[in-house]
Amino acid sequence: MIKTLTKFVEEECIPNEHRFEQELGVGAQRWSRVPPVIQELKQKARNLGLWNLFIPHEYEESPGLTNYEYAHLCEIMGRSIQLAPTATNCSAPDTGNMEVLIKYGNAQQKKKWLVPLMNGEIRSAFAMTEPNVASSDATNISCKLTRVKGGYLVNGKKIWITGASGPALKLFLVMVRSGDMGSELTNNYAESGIKSIHRQHSVVIVPANSPGVNVKRPLTVFGFDDAPIGHSELEFNNVFIPEENMVLGEGRGFEIVQGRLGPGRIHHTMRAIGVAERALETMLARVTKRKVQGKTLAENRVILEWIAKARIDIDASRHLVLDAAHKIDLYGPANAKKEIALAKVFVPNVVLEVLDKAMQAHGAMGVGPDTPLAEMYANMRTLRLADGPDEVHLFQLGRSEVKKFLKRTDAAKSKL
Amino acid sequence: MIKTLTKFVEEECIPNEHRFEQELGVGAQRWSRVPPVIQELKQKARNLGLWNLFIPHEYEESPGLTNYEYAHLCEIMGRSIQLAPTATNCSAPDTGNMEVLIKYGNAQQKKKWLVPLMNGEIRSAFAMTEPNVASSDATNISCKLTRVKGGYLVNGKKIWITGASGPALKLFLVMVRSGDMGSELTNNYAESGIKSIHRQHSVVIVPANSPGVNVKRPLTVFGFDDAPIGHSELEFNNVFIPEENMVLGEGRGFEIVQGRLGPGRIHHTMRAIGVAERALETMLARVTKRKVQGKTLAENRVILEWIAKARIDIDASRHLVLDAAHKIDLYGPANAKKEIALAKVFVPNVVLEVLDKAMQAHGAMGVGPDTPLAEMYANMRTLRLADGPDEVHLFQLGRSEVKKFLKRTDAAKSKL
Amino acid sequence: MIKTLTKFVEEECIPNEHRFEQELGVGAQRWSRVPPVIQELKQKARNLGLWNLFIPHEYEESPGLTNYEYAHLCEIMGRSIQLAPTATNCSAPDTGNMEVLIKYGNAQQKKKWLVPLMNGEIRSAFAMTEPNVASSDATNISCKLTRVKGGYLVNGKKIWITGASGPALKLFLVMVRSGDMGSELTNNYAESGIKSIHRQHSVVIVPANSPGVNVKRPLTVFGFDDAPIGHSELEFNNVFIPEENMVLGEGRGFEIVQGRLGPGRIHHTMRAIGVAERALETMLARVTKRKVQGKTLAENRVILEWIAKARIDIDASRHLVLDAAHKIDLYGPANAKKEIALAKVFVPNVVLEVLDKAMQAHGAMGVGPDTPLAEMYANMRTLRLADGPDEVHLFQLGRSEVKKFLKRTDAAKSKL
Amino acid sequence: MIKTLTKFVEEECIPNEHRFEQELGVGAQRWSRVPPVIQELKQKARNLGLWNLFIPHEYEESPGLTNYEYAHLCEIMGRSIQLAPTATNCSAPDTGNMEVLIKYGNAQQKKKWLVPLMNGEIRSAFAMTEPNVASSDATNISCKLTRVKGGYLVNGKKIWITGASGPALKLFLVMVRSGDMGSELTNNYAESGIKSIHRQHSVVIVPANSPGVNVKRPLTVFGFDDAPIGHSELEFNNVFIPEENMVLGEGRGFEIVQGRLGPGRIHHTMRAIGVAERALETMLARVTKRKVQGKTLAENRVILEWIAKARIDIDASRHLVLDAAHKIDLYGPANAKKEIALAKVFVPNVVLEVLDKAMQAHGAMGVGPDTPLAEMYANMRTLRLADGPDEVHLFQLGRSEVKKFLKRTDAAKSKL
Repeated sequence: MIKTLTKFVEEECIPNEHRFEQELGVGAQRWSRVPPVIQELKQKARNLGLWNLFIPHEYEESPGLTNYEYAHLCEIMGRSIQLAPTATNCSAPDTGNMEVLIKYGNAQQKKKWLVPLMNGEIRSAFAMTEPNVASSDATNISCKLTRVKGGYLVNGKKIWITGASGPALKLFLVMVRSGDMGSELTNNYAESGIKSIHRQHSVVIVPANSPGVNVKRPLTVFGFDDAPIGHSELEFNNVFIPEENMVLGEGRGFEIVQGRLGPGRIHHTMRAIGVAERALETMLARVTKRKVQGKTLAENRVILEWIAKARIDIDASRHLVLDAAHKIDLYGPANAKKEIALAKVFVPNVVLEVLDKAMQAHGAMGVGPDTPLAEMYANMRTLRLADGPDEVHLFQLGRSEVKKFLKRTDAAKSKL
Repeated sequence: MIKTLTKFVEEECIPNEHRFEQELGVGAQRWSRVPPVIQELKQKARNLGLWNLFIPHEYEESPGLTNYEYAHLCEIMGRSIQLAPTATNCSAPDTGNMEVLIKYGNAQQKKKWLVPLMNGEIRSAFAMTEPNVASSDATNISCKLTRVKGGYLVNGKKIWITGASGPALKLFLVMVRSGDMGSELTNNYAESGIKSIHRQHSVVIVPANSPGVNVKRPLTVFGFDDAPIGHSELEFNNVFIPEENMVLGEGRGFEIVQGRLGPGRIHHTMRAIGVAERALETMLARVTKRKVQGKTLAENRVILEWIAKARIDIDASRHLVLDAAHKIDLYGPANAKKEIALAKVFVPNVVLEVLDKAMQAHGAMGVGPDTPLAEMYANMRTLRLADGPDEVHLFQLGRSEVKKFLKRTDAAKSKL
Repeated sequence: MIKTLTKFVEEECIPNEHRFEQELGVGAQRWSRVPPVIQELKQKARNLGLWNLFIPHEYEESPGLTNYEYAHLCEIMGRSIQLAPTATNCSAPDTGNMEVLIKYGNAQQKKKWLVPLMNGEIRSAFAMTEPNVASSDATNISCKLTRVKGGYLVNGKKIWITGASGPALKLFLVMVRSGDMGSELTNNYAESGIKSIHRQHSVVIVPANSPGVNVKRPLTVFGFDDAPIGHSELEFNNVFIPEENMVLGEGRGFEIVQGRLGPGRIHHTMRAIGVAERALETMLARVTKRKVQGKTLAENRVILEWIAKARIDIDASRHLVLDAAHKIDLYGPANAKKEIALAKVFVPNVVLEVLDKAMQAHGAMGVGPDTPLAEMYANMRTLRLADGPDEVHLFQLGRSEVKKFLKRTDAAKSKL
Repeated sequence: MIKTLTKFVEEECIPNEHRFEQELGVGAQRWSRVPPVIQELKQKARNLGLWNLFIPHEYEESPGLTNYEYAHLCEIMGRSIQLAPTATNCSAPDTGNMEVLIKYGNAQQKKKWLVPLMNGEIRSAFAMTEPNVASSDATNISCKLTRVKGGYLVNGKKIWITGASGPALKLFLVMVRSGDMGSELTNNYAESGIKSIHRQHSVVIVPANSPGVNVKRPLTVFGFDDAPIGHSELEFNNVFIPEENMVLGEGRGFEIVQGRLGPGRIHHTMRAIGVAERALETMLARVTKRKVQGKTLAENRVILEWIAKARIDIDASRHLVLDAAHKIDLYGPANAKKEIALAKVFVPNVVLEVLDKAMQAHGAMGVGPDTPLAEMYANMRTLRLADGPDEVHLFQLGRSEVKKFLKRTDAAKSKL
């Protein structure tokens, strides 16, 4: 499969990136239709069996890959970050949403929403982050869910919702504050030791065309709009949803959110390795051709150090990512927290360094539209913020090392 | 004047940045007209005597400031990098172009082009960089100038030409290869020691509306189009210009280019200090407000270190810039090469670091459109490439240190 | 004076560094006598008027230099860090101790201790840091002073006491906890707003040969003993001192300690600039000679970048140090806290980077005894810890920026 | 075996480090005898089967470990870098020398020198580096071998020879320039494609007590003498050695040297992981105890980031080292060049960073003699220079990436 996917990415995706940009065009059109090249590539990928590869091997719908195996494929997809994940139906946020529906959706929800998602016919968004609150602590989520006859009303603002402006979007999974609603569950939770503060939220399905769903504006990252996926600010104004759109049950939002962030948390870093390899190749192509005063840049020792350090950083990144994937396979995401955090912090930072050097080697061209570098930089820069900024992960990692140390030394003392 | 300018920037420019974005709008409109706010601000600035401040004190047209004095003003303008330099008619590339016309233009050229530029009625571009060659070595310039009856033809491609797509653009100063044309000057040059390779180029004035001037596309920097100034790719196809549009004389392009890069070379770094101060303030505003788990981010020691390091880096930058400006005042740009290079390399790198931390402190908002940080980042990132990438300056600086050392030790030896 | 001092350092100090090492020898001898070369250099320096240059211009005993002027001289001394400061009687900790006696000593104390110190006949130590407590907060000092008939007893441990093992040492200034002793002063202090916690300490003079003074061991920094000055661990066991050895008055230790840390706080950074210049020269000497495959290392672009970056860092350091000195001259040390902190943090870090590259350019020789680099590295590394570690200064600097910002924005608001 | 070794290091080595320092003492004594604790530990280690673990599994004498397996053990030894490798007879340079004798020694040489080395009864040195030449290119070696009746004379200088001053030293393996001597081998070499420049050197055994062996001085690294092993400068003055002391054959020095640098090249990095883990633990012990203003340093977020980053760097290092060891096991050292280089450059740099932060967290204590940190720093700093400085490896790595890229793209083109 590595071979098939590599061939697909190198021969079908990368050469079509320019066509994709052309088809996107300028202005409102960028959001109004999926560029035809996407549909063609999806068809080809599916015919080659390169489809839904991300689904963890423990689910029926899975092509049977472990996270370790998928990590290798993800890297390859990362080489054409705009096209390959989408073409293979392996792109965020659909991947995480499909996982939610696989794990927590009921039969009806699966039929209505999961099947077309798995077929790549529709797209979905996950609406969690809100303006004005620190959403990295999900207990701050304030978008409100209230019960009305036959269902619920959703009210609140969301921001940085990936895919919300996209032409194929059909549903939002929305994290909402449902408050004490989940009272019937209280007893179970009390037994299970989950604190009350983690019973106040729910995840609901909001059809994209519901009245009251107001997508206010697409946001740019640096100056890129990331069309036709994009990241948007939106508002839910008295949006009605039927009862059957509650996922798993009232008050169980935290379970779902945590489950969603399992392996998905490192898909980004897996792809980032591929981004970095692509950047290094782009730099190599430049420096082996560009001559200054009769010599190629590749003869310049400063540039050679950039290349060498890029190789070191990329290979170290790959080891960390594969190790995290492997630990998830062996022990589950909850027991691979350390490994996930290591990769989550290390990888984007060094990939950005590789990209920065690749841009620098290109001169002005490196920050402009004629190489994929600046857009990859913008994309990778968000990884230092998404799912919690570096500093939160470093803090937790540091604290966890301290705790382990204290436990170890206490244990050592008590042995005496 | 510092006080007046500070008040103007804080009360007139910064509060109008949002309006500027609104007036720019989207699509083709961004290039078709100068946002009205610009005209208003220009009028106000001129009334306050904040006009053409950049012109070196040795010229008649100058408001009489030294570079050292101007550096302080430039920093203040940098705080509103999109509006303040333009509003005060102190923005690149017009500043450099006016200097060229002041120093090298004849009376007729001054009357026709310099006067309206100094009045801020028209804008200009400087067309030097070309695709496919290392333009940091100007001897590579290949855009061709040929003599025809009554004038010349210009043929060739240029890229990253700032302002070329702007609505007020009236003229290009173009660096062209004029070849042996300058033969009548050969003797003088031979005497003056200038090598033949530096007699092959000329600078000519090309009116923007000349037939054959083809602006192909505006280029983006990290996705930003920098409208209504922008940076464009363009082509000159058999563009005819009259003889009187030759500046200084055939074959004297190098003199002009070098003269143009004098003090102007550090205007960018002067403004960059202001950009960094603005970024630090933006970060301070964020972290003193944003609360996580009941505490502001400003109570987090990691953040306090970012702030402290930003202060250190900014103040060190300011010292380097002011020192370079002072040395230019005392000894002229040619004798302040070292100081200019120190600032040129140090400042953009640390300003980018300040910006990066400021973005990080904002979460996703930091890379989005609701703070000026990402656009400032893109802007500052180009300073590591413009007028020669960091590496060229480091190489020259290193070599110059080596030469000075050898000279010093040889001198020491010969004393024995 | 710059010329005279430069000549003295280049022609008398640097060429004698090897002789100094030889005379120091090995084993116990290193602590038993001052190498004769030191005495010779002292005589020469004094004859040249290069003596006690550090004394601030506001004191009678001063040669009349401002801190800004002294900073330039200090840099020159730093080029021969082992010999020049000692030869000119400008070396820590004597400089700070002389300042204490000048500012706070009574006539008798001046006659007995200050005069021979200023003549360079004896040396002194300042005993503040203690094992097991965070001495960067001086309220933790626990070495105890108790009153007995005719004087006091001193009891306690001190560590990292510079000069304590030296052959010429005659006195310690010791920071002690005197507790409520200073009660007669309470009222004055209460009026002056100084908190009681800052009235619990005193500074006393302990003659080095007092019974009960036990210098336990010299400490190494990395593996260097820094003989014949050194840094020692010591104990005071019931050491009796007469009443007249109290400096300024009981309970006034804090005043003295803070006064002592005035300009002295940046003498180290001033000298550090000289250390870095020496390191850069050492590197230049190496790379212009050493050939690899027929080319000198100075032709290697990576090495040229090291040199260029060293130049940038050194010049930025110098600006920061001179600016801090200038601000002290203008406004006093208390009002130059920010500038002192900027230099205190920035300079040692970049000097270490310069030293690290200089070592790297020498291969194994760089970390060995045949260049001064490794010892300079050890010396400079302590500057990131002495008088408070980097992190304390960064924390205070960050907090002070936050406070200034809040004050400014509050002021801006209240204007509305 | 991991368990046994861990227990041995934690319970026998680390607690004895202080005793080792005490037994070493001061002055000449440091070189005159092996501290008794070493002999005791050796006996214990051998009894536990922790002996000669380094010998690659393909040799008869090996305990049968792969490099991958040995890497894990090496890390554990690195935790007590002064004692554990020596105690287990796994310390450089003996390990490399034993490998040379195993691979290239004849029966008589093995009996006389290898057996006592493997028994840990004697020690050996490898004399390659010379003053004044760039020894990282071994063709520069100039120590001369000349034929005389019954044997050879050795003449020349060597420097940084580890172990040369040690009390147990019995033999040197010396890389010498034997010139055209190896003529009888010319034909074979010519066939094998080895260039003549690589036939000019030989490796010979020089008994340590041979007349004319002059160990001039032990060298320090950052002030540390590293007794009783040390690193010395020495001279061979007409040292006679019998014919039987030629290893492998005249002119075959290069083969030997390259063979010697096989797996051994990463033993240092394997141990460095253990050094870093020890440093992190030392830091954790400090910061969980030390209180400032009522809070432990472990509650300071800046310190927690140091700890987190140390964990990331250490784990990334371990992955790189284990991967290199694994590739050596699978494909041999020659085919694991890239992986070896990655680890060789990455690991020491990040371990130094961990050590630097650990020192910083200790205040002055961190650079003094009461923690192992400063000595570990000195030790690790040499790894950036030993077996070629970082820059040589980065250069080669960069060039190799360029070559691979060109090969790949040429191949891709030729397919068209």
